[in-house]
Amino acid sequence: MLTSLKRFLIGRPLKSTELGEQKINKTKALAILSSDALSSVAYGPEQILIVLITVGAAAFWYSIPIAIGVLFLLTALILSYRQIIYAYPHGGGAYIVSKSNLGVNPGLIAGGSLLVDYILTVAVSVSAGTDAITSAFPALHEFNVEIAIIFVIFLTVLNLRGVTESASILAYPVYLFVLALFILIAVGIYKIVTGDVSADLPTPIGTPVAGISLFILLRAFASGSSALTGVEAISNAIPNFKDPAPVNAARTLMMMGALLAILFSGIVTLAYFYGVVPKAEVTVVSQIAEETFGRNFMYFFVQGTTALILILAANTGYSAFPLLAVNLAKDKFIPRMFLARGDRLGYSNGIIILGLASILLIVAFHAETEHLIPLYAVGVFIPFTLSQTGMMLKWLREKPAGWVPKFITNTTGAVISFIVTLMFFLTKFSQVWSILVFLPIIVFIFHRIKKHYDAVGDQLRLTTCEPSPDIKGNVMIVPVAGITHVVENSLKYAKSLNPDQIIAVYVAFEREDEKKFEEKWEKWQPDIRLVTLHSQYRSIIGPLTKFVDTVAHKAKEGDYQVTIVIPQFIPKKGWHNILHNQSSLLIRAYLLYKRDIVISTVPFHLKK
Amino acid sequence: MLTSLKRFLIGRPLKSTELGEQKINKTKALAILSSDALSSVAYGPEQILIVLITVGAAAFWYSIPIAIGVLFLLTALILSYRQIIYAYPHGGGAYIVSKSNLGVNPGLIAGGSLLVDYILTVAVSVSAGTDAITSAFPALHEFNVEIAIIFVIFLTVLNLRGVTESASILAYPVYLFVLALFILIAVGIYKIVTGDVSADLPTPIGTPVAGISLFILLRAFASGSSALTGVEAISNAIPNFKDPAPVNAARTLMMMGALLAILFSGIVTLAYFYGVVPKAEVTVVSQIAEETFGRNFMYFFVQGTTALILILAANTGYSAFPLLAVNLAKDKFIPRMFLARGDRLGYSNGIIILGLASILLIVAFHAETEHLIPLYAVGVFIPFTLSQTGMMLKWLREKPAGWVPKFITNTTGAVISFIVTLMFFLTKFSQVWSILVFLPIIVFIFHRIKKHYDAVGDQLRLTTCEPSPDIKGNVMIVPVAGITHVVENSLKYAKSLNPDQIIAVYVAFEREDEKKFEEKWEKWQPDIRLVTLHSQYRSIIGPLTKFVDTVAHKAKEGDYQVTIVIPQFIPKKGWHNILHNQSSLLIRAYLLYKRDIVISTVPFHLKK
Repeated sequence: MLTSLKRFLIGRPLKSTELGEQKINKTKALAILSSDALSSVAYGPEQILIVLITVGAAAFWYSIPIAIGVLFLLTALILSYRQIIYAYPHGGGAYIVSKSNLGVNPGLIAGGSLLVDYILTVAVSVSAGTDAITSAFPALHEFNVEIAIIFVIFLTVLNLRGVTESASILAYPVYLFVLALFILIAVGIYKIVTGDVSADLPTPIGTPVAGISLFILLRAFASGSSALTGVEAISNAIPNFKDPAPVNAARTLMMMGALLAILFSGIVTLAYFYGVVPKAEVTVVSQIAEETFGRNFMYFFVQGTTALILILAANTGYSAFPLLAVNLAKDKFIPRMFLARGDRLGYSNGIIILGLASILLIVAFHAETEHLIPLYAVGVFIPFTLSQTGMMLKWLREKPAGWVPKFITNTTGAVISFIVTLMFFLTKFSQVWSILVFLPIIVFIFHRIKKHYDAVGDQLRLTTCEPSPDIKGNVMIVPVAGITHVVENSLKYAKSLNPDQIIAVYVAFEREDEKKFEEKWEKWQPDIRLVTLHSQYRSIIGPLTKFVDTVAHKAKEGDYQVTIVIPQFIPKKGWHNILHNQSSLLIRAYLLYKRDIVISTVPFHLKK
Repeated sequence: MLTSLKRFLIGRPLKSTELGEQKINKTKALAILSSDALSSVAYGPEQILIVLITVGAAAFWYSIPIAIGVLFLLTALILSYRQIIYAYPHGGGAYIVSKSNLGVNPGLIAGGSLLVDYILTVAVSVSAGTDAITSAFPALHEFNVEIAIIFVIFLTVLNLRGVTESASILAYPVYLFVLALFILIAVGIYKIVTGDVSADLPTPIGTPVAGISLFILLRAFASGSSALTGVEAISNAIPNFKDPAPVNAARTLMMMGALLAILFSGIVTLAYFYGVVPKAEVTVVSQIAEETFGRNFMYFFVQGTTALILILAANTGYSAFPLLAVNLAKDKFIPRMFLARGDRLGYSNGIIILGLASILLIVAFHAETEHLIPLYAVGVFIPFTLSQTGMMLKWLREKPAGWVPKFITNTTGAVISFIVTLMFFLTKFSQVWSILVFLPIIVFIFHRIKKHYDAVGDQLRLTTCEPSPDIKGNVMIVPVAGITHVVENSLKYAKSLNPDQIIAVYVAFEREDEKKFEEKWEKWQPDIRLVTLHSQYRSIIGPLTKFVDTVAHKAKEGDYQVTIVIPQFIPKKGWHNILHNQSSLLIRAYLLYKRDIVISTVPFHLKK
């Protein structure tokens, strides 16, 4: 039943040899890997205006130079990551780059913050998208959490089906969104050029504004930079690209940079010339669209695709998280299960964990995740800074032909990213301080996990560990609950293995019962030694464990191995299980986990 | 950790020999077994007035004759149950009485409806009590469900501690409630006699009232009879009494009957002479108390103890449910686990299941369980009718000395109980129809469970089942994941048992890996046969199960037994478990439950 549900949801399992067919081309990659970055256009320009309005609408002209700053940072980041892709063609990303150039701990800081960040990406994007939808249908507003969870489940299943399928389905909305914004920007600029704009002319660029300060400008810049989150996703996901993977990834990255630059500057320009003032209820993009088209089809087209891309931005997390987890798991910093490919060849454990974690976040924050955005931005810019710094050191160390321009590119990226990171801490400390708490904790956990795996490795390796003593003989203990066919079965099994000794153990709750049973046993199985234990507290486990301990202690002295033979009822129907005491499970859990004893479970299949 | 929490909550375990000390005397028994019946006084008289007001306040005088009718029924029930106690001194109750005199199915109907009824008792009483408390503190009103759940948990823990302790703690509130109502009734009657009552004189008894009908009177009578629920509890709980148990139980029953009669008639009388009209917001008892004392300490004393006893009424369910479950489990109609005594000698499984089921009901009905009351009342009167009828047949069949008055008592009880049951179906069908659905389902389930146990018994009994063939030899399969110390350990164990054949199985995901492993194995364990399986879909279970099936099929032909030796990592710390693949658990679940194969788990305890 469960199997067929699974098949229905994620499709037939794929052979390992079909991996190549699961690689994606540039068009689809651009769609699934850049949705996060592109969707930031929907709120990035607004963030700049929100900071500037604290000074006054006269300060809005500063959005133009600030946007130029953001574009400059974008160019630096894109060029830097392009270099990273060629330098680490097997999937780089901040973790690998930082680890190999700066050392393990910077690598873990980058990896850890990205890991958490992708979870935030999913939670924040889906919540924002849900909010956009329920704003249009207020009756649904109270079901925000449920709707958001459904979207997360949908994305999780889609990604479990495999990267090709999710790319095919998600490509349309992403390109529709790009198309919608292109039309919006084109029509908007046409209107501005033809003077067909109703608003008053905005404050001209360069007008002196009272109360403006470098601090406010930097803050606006940092806020605007939050539009650049998601830029690193492609460098993590190189293994998903068709061959030649690095070349395709680099081209996709450049394409994404170009699109992002056009959309971002377009929206900022329109906002400035339209004199848009940020409002609590209506987004800047919505105001621009209404100003440009009025409330017609195009307006709803822009709004609809924006809501969609906000949700799909979450998919970037689904593309990047599992691959980052694979890299961390290869180095033994997180559980090995993230290395296993699922039925559809995706890293299903990573996908499922990401889905569950973001559902937890959505529930915990009641799908109101706006104040997580700064945290999320700072969690991106820390790895940005670390990876660019790592690249700087790489060029300095290796000095390949023509390294100077490369070095300059990465240095620029590193410096600006660092400034943005600092600005977040200086201007929004109350919203981002928690990263200072949980990053050390995560890095600590990484190290603990690695330590455990290393210790296990040492204990398993034949060369390093002391060989266990040879087993000189066997003692088998058979707990018996009565004189029945099941017990006969277990005894037959024990006898067939010819151990040195078989001991049947009976736990009695009452003294009379004890004697009666011993007499019956004597008649039934005179050749097998029976030990009866009296249980004052009506527990089977207690006396049994004590007895087994005594036997095991003696056995160990002679290098004998103790085995407990437990019969286990297997009823025909699942619900029958609650009709039987699950003593055998309890005994198993107690003795296996606490002692050095082999547990043999002999199944007894009930036929009716 | 869990163990010490358990000790803290329920106390140290008790020896089986301490059972005698867990018996209770009459004073305490009266408190815990009659709280349900006595608490009904808080709403029974009100139920009568609520029906009569549909005709008009002039009809209130009918409450006096109706109350006399209820008292008559009460007397009949008490006397009947007294006879049941002496006839079934080991704990009778409707189930046993109906089963032994009317047959299995009537017994199961009685037992099933009581079982459900005790769950309803707990849910309804706790909800009503919680409501009484939060009416006094409206700020708490929105936490009704949580508060009710806390009360249920409190009662569950108290009962898990044992019947003596719960009796000691619960005796005070019950007797305080009785004291409060005695004072109320005494002062009230004194005021009426001295003419110190503010209200107009009520309609004199006997005044003709327009619109009154036999139907309405019977309906009022049935509603008033809901005050008699809980009367049967003592007859179920005889085993909890100190010796001589039946005598003590019978005296306690008479005492309860007397108290119930006094309180019930007192409240009805006061309500009549005060001319109390039932209101939605204020209970009848509250109106009488205010009229009698004004809003002083005594008023709040009456209200407080009423709220308390409503909650404690639930405890009657806790006393009777586990004992009824024991009787049903002895006859194999419900799972055997209800027979086991817990650490404190109570039937803890029954107590816990009752607690969980009532929490479920409280959550499902948002702690608004008023409309469950008729269902609950009908669920009591069905077993009342059945057990009294059973007693009738018993006297007719056995005809002991002086059986005629006994027969008349039970016949009266049976007839009136039957009329009340009918009235519930005629007048409140919309609220009680569901019992007609779930009673057959419950009885069906009872039979299914019994059938399963009987079938298992047949399959276990040595005399009735065909003996299993002797095992002529053993094949051991050792799944190996690499060349490690763990594998070495498992192989040593398998070798020490000298089976006829040992087969090591390796599941490879890639073709190259396969060859490499075979070569390594040849060097390491040349004397053990290795089989490598190729897994196209990266599943270990799939190919392994197929292989095991083939081996098992061959083995069966020669009466060989197949054993799978699985190594199991036991990490030092619990959390380490998530760092390891739990393949061994999966393999175990698959092979044990689906095939006839013994699973030997060889523990490998990690030291670091």
